[in-house]
Amino acid sequence: MKSFKIALAQFSPHIGNVESNVQKMIDQVNSAKKQNADLIIFPELATVGYPAEDLFLRPSLSKRTLQAFEQLSLVKDIVMVFGFVHQAEDGHRYNSAAVMKDGQVLGIYNKQNLPNYSVFDEKRYFNEGHQHLVFEYLGHKFGVLICEDVWSLNTVQQLSQLNVETALVLNASPYEVGKPQHRVATLTELSKQLNLNLVYVNQVGGQDDLIFDGTSFVLNKDGTVALQAASFKEDLFIVDYDAEQKFYKVHDSAPALSTMAEIYQGLVLATRDYVQRSGFPGVILGLSGGIDSALTLAIAVDALGADKVQAVMMPYTYTSQISVEDATEQAKRMGVTFGIAEIHPIVNSFMQTLYPFFGNSPADATEENLQARARGTLLMGLSNKFGNLVLSTGNKSELAVGYCTLYGDMVGGFAVLKDVYKTIVFELAKYRNSLEETPVIPERVITRPPSAELRPDQKDQDSLPAYDVLDAILYAYIEDDLSQDDIIAKGFDKEVVEKVIRLVDRNEYKRRQGAIGPRITSRAFSRERRYPIVNGWKPGI
Amino acid sequence: MKSFKIALAQFSPHIGNVESNVQKMIDQVNSAKKQNADLIIFPELATVGYPAEDLFLRPSLSKRTLQAFEQLSLVKDIVMVFGFVHQAEDGHRYNSAAVMKDGQVLGIYNKQNLPNYSVFDEKRYFNEGHQHLVFEYLGHKFGVLICEDVWSLNTVQQLSQLNVETALVLNASPYEVGKPQHRVATLTELSKQLNLNLVYVNQVGGQDDLIFDGTSFVLNKDGTVALQAASFKEDLFIVDYDAEQKFYKVHDSAPALSTMAEIYQGLVLATRDYVQRSGFPGVILGLSGGIDSALTLAIAVDALGADKVQAVMMPYTYTSQISVEDATEQAKRMGVTFGIAEIHPIVNSFMQTLYPFFGNSPADATEENLQARARGTLLMGLSNKFGNLVLSTGNKSELAVGYCTLYGDMVGGFAVLKDVYKTIVFELAKYRNSLEETPVIPERVITRPPSAELRPDQKDQDSLPAYDVLDAILYAYIEDDLSQDDIIAKGFDKEVVEKVIRLVDRNEYKRRQGAIGPRITSRAFSRERRYPIVNGWKPGI
Repeated sequence: MKSFKIALAQFSPHIGNVESNVQKMIDQVNSAKKQNADLIIFPELATVGYPAEDLFLRPSLSKRTLQAFEQLSLVKDIVMVFGFVHQAEDGHRYNSAAVMKDGQVLGIYNKQNLPNYSVFDEKRYFNEGHQHLVFEYLGHKFGVLICEDVWSLNTVQQLSQLNVETALVLNASPYEVGKPQHRVATLTELSKQLNLNLVYVNQVGGQDDLIFDGTSFVLNKDGTVALQAASFKEDLFIVDYDAEQKFYKVHDSAPALSTMAEIYQGLVLATRDYVQRSGFPGVILGLSGGIDSALTLAIAVDALGADKVQAVMMPYTYTSQISVEDATEQAKRMGVTFGIAEIHPIVNSFMQTLYPFFGNSPADATEENLQARARGTLLMGLSNKFGNLVLSTGNKSELAVGYCTLYGDMVGGFAVLKDVYKTIVFELAKYRNSLEETPVIPERVITRPPSAELRPDQKDQDSLPAYDVLDAILYAYIEDDLSQDDIIAKGFDKEVVEKVIRLVDRNEYKRRQGAIGPRITSRAFSRERRYPIVNGWKPGI
Repeated sequence: MKSFKIALAQFSPHIGNVESNVQKMIDQVNSAKKQNADLIIFPELATVGYPAEDLFLRPSLSKRTLQAFEQLSLVKDIVMVFGFVHQAEDGHRYNSAAVMKDGQVLGIYNKQNLPNYSVFDEKRYFNEGHQHLVFEYLGHKFGVLICEDVWSLNTVQQLSQLNVETALVLNASPYEVGKPQHRVATLTELSKQLNLNLVYVNQVGGQDDLIFDGTSFVLNKDGTVALQAASFKEDLFIVDYDAEQKFYKVHDSAPALSTMAEIYQGLVLATRDYVQRSGFPGVILGLSGGIDSALTLAIAVDALGADKVQAVMMPYTYTSQISVEDATEQAKRMGVTFGIAEIHPIVNSFMQTLYPFFGNSPADATEENLQARARGTLLMGLSNKFGNLVLSTGNKSELAVGYCTLYGDMVGGFAVLKDVYKTIVFELAKYRNSLEETPVIPERVITRPPSAELRPDQKDQDSLPAYDVLDAILYAYIEDDLSQDDIIAKGFDKEVVEKVIRLVDRNEYKRRQGAIGPRITSRAFSRERRYPIVNGWKPGI
């Protein structure tokens, strides 16, 4: 029995790149060894990254994993616990953890609980394990769990009954608002209930639409939080176990984040990882003078630096002077490359070309969409010519009801605010402005009534209910899965609810062709809300 | 013991519309009764349709199913076997079949084998059943199986050991080339091996990217095919059982289809169902004079009728005269509405607006994309104004290597040829031309070398390997899951293979924003090839 140090590698893998991930793991091992760690723990599936989706099925993954083991087997004088894809001899594939020391594999644990709901599809890829892994090291008894396992009372209870003192939990648990706090609160209770210390290591980084927040932690079985790692940062954290006191010493915790700080940092991380890991030199976006593009610009600059961000204002007849002023002012404050491109000639040429077909048909959404598509095509032209990725700027409320133009403002490779309701967009803008003496987003952008400026004196609220009402209905329908009748019964106006739900249902086709964007809610329009496009479901009960 | 008649309802549900599906089921019951059927069998999950995806999770589905049972319980004098979602009292949800007669539920069977690979996600929605259902009727012993169950030797063997004479198999088995023949061949062997008659009823109809071909059949245990229903048609088929001979009488079979006929009819059905069930009055597409749009036009006309189809030619400087002639000629032969819209003024206005940004940068793909996006925006303008759905015309080979413009020629709600390799496009065009004395596609469209006509004298083969080589490499990589090294080892040129694979890998983002389109292969770019966009997997081993 001896005191020891555990290193938590809050690791950000490059999905699918086993070679570079293993190289980075070895770097972290070396850093842990310099800090005298006896044990280092990596997240779930660290070698290939989570979720690698159908890359898990590539026949050569097992060869690549073997190469990874060969490299890792050269590491000496530290116990490593890391996640990998285990292609077993029985032909089954497992989501597994290896315990390795001095080139010897001391044990392999196969995840027992495979989530196959929400954003998870693990039963597509893996078989379930049926055995616990327990190992003794430095006189201490450790057990291993992988992510979903720790949420199964049954599984953790079995482990605790094997006289395990500390459970090492390897995770790739995606972020959503409130999730970091929920994990610690729930597992503190479990830890106390089962008399088990918990070392919880989470993946960090953006991967397509998923954000992994890290926020790893260590819990003593008496309920004290020994370590609380920062969110949204790749780092190595060390925790000390005092064998005398049988206690993980309490280390300085990362400061708690406000909800808006948490969301904002999550979006920054997601944007940075998407852009950099896709190999783009920078980003470009259309700045309209409205709040969505203003917030997107701020996030882009915080993610990549002003020198990597280009903003373009594309005014038309209905663009107000204050929009041009505010966009120009924000671009100046943020120090990004900024240009103005009038779209009149383009829209006119479309209208003239279409005149023989349209004749004297009255103007409708068609003409509005032409403006949006002229802008989308200009942005794509600039992107094609100079290589910057187009960020699209729409929010979740718009996307839900289809208040956006496919191939127009929906153009782009990454939709930063895709899962952010409009009411939260306002909060995030205020939050970002609160960080500096001179607010980066001109005040007027936040206070003026939102408008798409696609026809004279247009306001969003001409077509949609007030955003607080709209978002409440959307939340009830999408996140809470309530029916139309349930929502009306909560006191919302019947006609408004019916209209909103009709719009959500009929705009599935638009969302399906939209860019991916980072998930921050419990039900994003991404891999976790899978609705058929051809869909005869009638709202009501 | 008595002779009897079974009706096979080769049924096309409207996904999610329980009310209309049940109404249609009752219509089919009435038709079956008129033909003196004793038993009618519907496909898997007939009440809600397959796959209803996350509609399976809507809380009110169980109420809607209850209403369906109430309506079906009014049916008298026939045994109905139909699929439904069974929300059991233990809180589990099952993919089930009910046996109902005169308002009484005689038994419920819960599917035991839940596919969760390829296009299937059943473990997201359902729990596994663990019990067989056997019932006696008219002195004959029946068992029930649902789709994947019949492919588990173990499950079918257990059923046969319960002295079942006929297994009723309810299916929603999606089409792919060769699948209809494969089902009959494999199950004929099984039927003989286990001494079991099989009545196999399959869903028919297009649902988003999936085509259900129907092609239901009845097998005697001696290996004779008693009934072979037509593919791609909703219909009711009756089979007679002779109790004396213990034999399903052999009925006239639907004529076998050539592979091209099969694919063509599948695409026609998929297009018709998508357009009609989405409520569009018709379709519009860009006709370029090339073979992809020519074939798409023919399919659209066969699916919807010429009066529902509008074609637009949008020439530019690089459009050859023969393209205009051929497009005009085909539109005339097919009798569709046809118009020509020159895009010079639009492309020029884009170029002038971008000039201050581009300066004297040399022309590259940017300028080509502007042409494609001008066309896409025109089509969308016409679609917005008059309500027709835009069909996109790209094929699988292009989409695989990204030889297509996002928001340009990729514009559209349904991509008819999305899963059709270019080499098959040629075959299908020849097949369609073979059906009539005057070929609907002008011969020159098929024989001239393919060109995107986006720069002077451009040919597809300037940028891509010959299509037979390209398609062979793509097939090896996508359908057969071979690695780069494997494909080179088959004798393909190393540089060509590396280039093709690099293009496939890096164009995932384009495909993700593309329209859905009907699946005809074993590995479509749809729900069954799920690759991360940010993806560090290196080709090689």
